[in-house]
Amino acid sequence: MARKIGINAPFLDEGLKAKIEEKANKNGFETVYFKDPADACAGSDGCEVLFGSFPLDAIKADKSLKWLACSFAGVDKVVSDDLYQNPDVLVTNSAGAYGVTISEHMIAVTLMMMRRMPEYADLVSKREWRLIGNIRSIMRSTVTIVGMGDIGTNFARRVKALGASCVRGVRRTKKPGPDCYDEVYTIDELEKAVERADVVALCVPGTDATTHLVNENLLSHMKDGAYLVNVGRGWAVDQPALIKALESGKLAGAALDVAVPEPLPKDDPLWSAPNILITPHVSGNMSLDITREYVVNMFCDNIDRYARGEKLENLVDRKIGY
Amino acid sequence: MARKIGINAPFLDEGLKAKIEEKANKNGFETVYFKDPADACAGSDGCEVLFGSFPLDAIKADKSLKWLACSFAGVDKVVSDDLYQNPDVLVTNSAGAYGVTISEHMIAVTLMMMRRMPEYADLVSKREWRLIGNIRSIMRSTVTIVGMGDIGTNFARRVKALGASCVRGVRRTKKPGPDCYDEVYTIDELEKAVERADVVALCVPGTDATTHLVNENLLSHMKDGAYLVNVGRGWAVDQPALIKALESGKLAGAALDVAVPEPLPKDDPLWSAPNILITPHVSGNMSLDITREYVVNMFCDNIDRYARGEKLENLVDRKIGY
Repeated sequence: MARKIGINAPFLDEGLKAKIEEKANKNGFETVYFKDPADACAGSDGCEVLFGSFPLDAIKADKSLKWLACSFAGVDKVVSDDLYQNPDVLVTNSAGAYGVTISEHMIAVTLMMMRRMPEYADLVSKREWRLIGNIRSIMRSTVTIVGMGDIGTNFARRVKALGASCVRGVRRTKKPGPDCYDEVYTIDELEKAVERADVVALCVPGTDATTHLVNENLLSHMKDGAYLVNVGRGWAVDQPALIKALESGKLAGAALDVAVPEPLPKDDPLWSAPNILITPHVSGNMSLDITREYVVNMFCDNIDRYARGEKLENLVDRKIGY
Repeated sequence: MARKIGINAPFLDEGLKAKIEEKANKNGFETVYFKDPADACAGSDGCEVLFGSFPLDAIKADKSLKWLACSFAGVDKVVSDDLYQNPDVLVTNSAGAYGVTISEHMIAVTLMMMRRMPEYADLVSKREWRLIGNIRSIMRSTVTIVGMGDIGTNFARRVKALGASCVRGVRRTKKPGPDCYDEVYTIDELEKAVERADVVALCVPGTDATTHLVNENLLSHMKDGAYLVNVGRGWAVDQPALIKALESGKLAGAALDVAVPEPLPKDDPLWSAPNILITPHVSGNMSLDITREYVVNMFCDNIDRYARGEKLENLVDRKIGY
């Protein structure tokens, strides 16, 4: 009986499927595509490898599973031993696939706030034609980026290229970053790192250490009229404190692609805070071709490694959760 | 009687006024600040130099005028001989002052269209939380920039830094451009220059040669699903042809900061074309500190040159219009 790769990845087009097919066949696998999550639950059993995004029941049902290859980055929901029949199941994620798309989102929302685009959209919806007032620029600005991983560093490179005069990175440990950072701080120095910054951008994973990083105290250390951008996890921001800082004018704007909870309830006060730019957790996803190709290429390279018995790239340490 | 510089430039703060004052006095000029356009019309006569932005009547009324120093870039309205008592009046513009602000606008609107931000704004206004669908990126795109002056080249540098795979410049004459351009075309080769481009950006001055550059024929040479950006002059685009291209889906979007006429009448069909992103001619202006400082520094340096009888920087050739 052929070894099977079960696939639940609706973002795959014919070209990407062909790429996986070729790599799977070369290594002695056949592929099974599931139509939807229910189909995956019914049919996962017998697959040695699962690729894409699966309901927990589909993972539990697969008694032959040896490798769960996730097409997403945040694997906190699939690291528990209870999920797996075999305690040695390998879990890989797709960290590294989202740097381009999320950093382009961050450039877009930063410029939208600086150039007052939501106000112009309101004006134009009334078919009015006039100048609102002064705007600001990435050129000559100071930008603090919390989280110097793939996403933070892609954003750092872009703001530096657009002329930011000072790019600060904030990370857990004291070690130098790539050239695009002018200064590096540890997370313990966060208050100092946000002082005089025009933009503070959060690109941190959702762990206990990042809960309410942006709270009333940190906001008080930020420059008057600064902008906040959050593309990491919603709970990095104390939302009531943020609403107060927007209402008082302490912050000139906040662009949030993540919130607590998601979806944000229709009656949440965050929706109506002044100068807020909310997007419904869309900065990443599989919506950009570059992301889809990266995820598939990473999986294909890992099929080769898996078949040769080598260590997989992007292997998750299930004990620590990433 | 002292030689006079008449100034109509409401964007000047005290610091910038002091800079002009010092330079003017050093060179034997006194300055007259006008409160508003009407004040300028009543008081311009007798000024050897006018700096800022003036109603045509104020220019006509000034029988002593020798140098009109415009704080803006597009001087098409002030090049006619009929305006001037003295045929040898020098006209300078502020080309070069707008590269940063207009190119940041262009990056903003390009990413807004590619990432479907206006659709997300609609969704969020209804407090809905969901993914709309696929998006596109500047990374790996082909961008054609018509007009390789300061604005076009600032945009070229930025899209190149953001990972555009091919940046094409289009200019009047066949000569190489700066490194940020991968290919250079002449305006006669425009059809070829727009083929397969994901973004076509117009940064051309308003002259006869640029009227309806984007017409039904050129649109037919553009890639299906391309984006158009216009920050130059409204009449570079045949608006009815553009509306058709948006309605048919030939273009995925168009960001217009300029239109014909301005202000765009409330009943103009352009307002309601699908996937259009209109801004009311605000990409430049004096709304950014970098622009204001650049315009004043350029004027101050030109006061020195003028006093020494040297050739002025940014001198307009009134015959060709820029």
